[in-house]
Amino acid sequence: MVKSRRAGDGVSAAKKIELKAIGFVKTEAVGKEVRDKGNVSEIVFREDLAEALDGIEDFSHFFVIFWMHETSKEERRMMKVHPRGRRDMPLLGVFATRTAYRPNAIGLTLVELLGVKGNVVTVRGLDAFDGTPVLDIKPFDYWDMAEDARVPEWWKRL
Amino acid sequence: MVKSRRAGDGVSAAKKIELKAIGFVKTEAVGKEVRDKGNVSEIVFREDLAEALDGIEDFSHFFVIFWMHETSKEERRMMKVHPRGRRDMPLLGVFATRTAYRPNAIGLTLVELLGVKGNVVTVRGLDAFDGTPVLDIKPFDYWDMAEDARVPEWWKRL
Repeated sequence: MVKSRRAGDGVSAAKKIELKAIGFVKTEAVGKEVRDKGNVSEIVFREDLAEALDGIEDFSHFFVIFWMHETSKEERRMMKVHPRGRRDMPLLGVFATRTAYRPNAIGLTLVELLGVKGNVVTVRGLDAFDGTPVLDIKPFDYWDMAEDARVPEWWKRL
Repeated sequence: MVKSRRAGDGVSAAKKIELKAIGFVKTEAVGKEVRDKGNVSEIVFREDLAEALDGIEDFSHFFVIFWMHETSKEERRMMKVHPRGRRDMPLLGVFATRTAYRPNAIGLTLVELLGVKGNVVTVRGLDAFDGTPVLDIKPFDYWDMAEDARVPEWWKRL
């Protein structure tokens, strides 16, 4: 048991955290097409944030953290799912999956950077729908990898 | 230029996105100690979400997406930083770095799962302060890695 330095953990559990999109996804892909690894999208950043992109072009890959805005309030209350809705998959807690049905409908995807032009960054491999609000991006480095990762058996069948 | 299927991109740019913590970080580490790769922390999930953890124990690693709540409004308006405040580093757009000074003060860290007990998950490698609100977790898989990633020269000196 890790001791906390502060009393009253969880007291602020009800407090809301307010975010504002830093940009939006632009893609011609629809439905399951967005999952195609070759899918090319643009991230159109807010113009007031263009300066904050300086230097991103020197990375080949970055993570995109986005808001899956098409997930409904009801879907965000789900506790368990069959991964990708497949009945041959076990029923699992949403946190053990990458489903969009989760309390905070945040998506996380590693993408390849193809180009930067002003406030527009073109990427490959972003599985987000057109119009998706982007919350943050993170340059990728080796510390984000676990070479020896273990995943469950069902995951390998996805 | 990717064509959008929808008109009016960016119209909702001002719209706020409201999140609620799914849990909180508990650690004895203070200051720079949290960056120690061996640092052990607990994530205490909200009790109403304990069920959503079912199956997480079968993964060795997962990403933690957290809210860097000690970042001030002023710091969130910064556009450029020297990585880790080091003057020997170039001045870069915040999105080209992993600084906490970013419009949405979101942190992303890959951690090793050590154990699960009810709504408490013990992890190694989480560089977040005691009391940090957690927004989401994502089981790690190989698709989150880029074996051939390119990073800038300054990054290697960090």
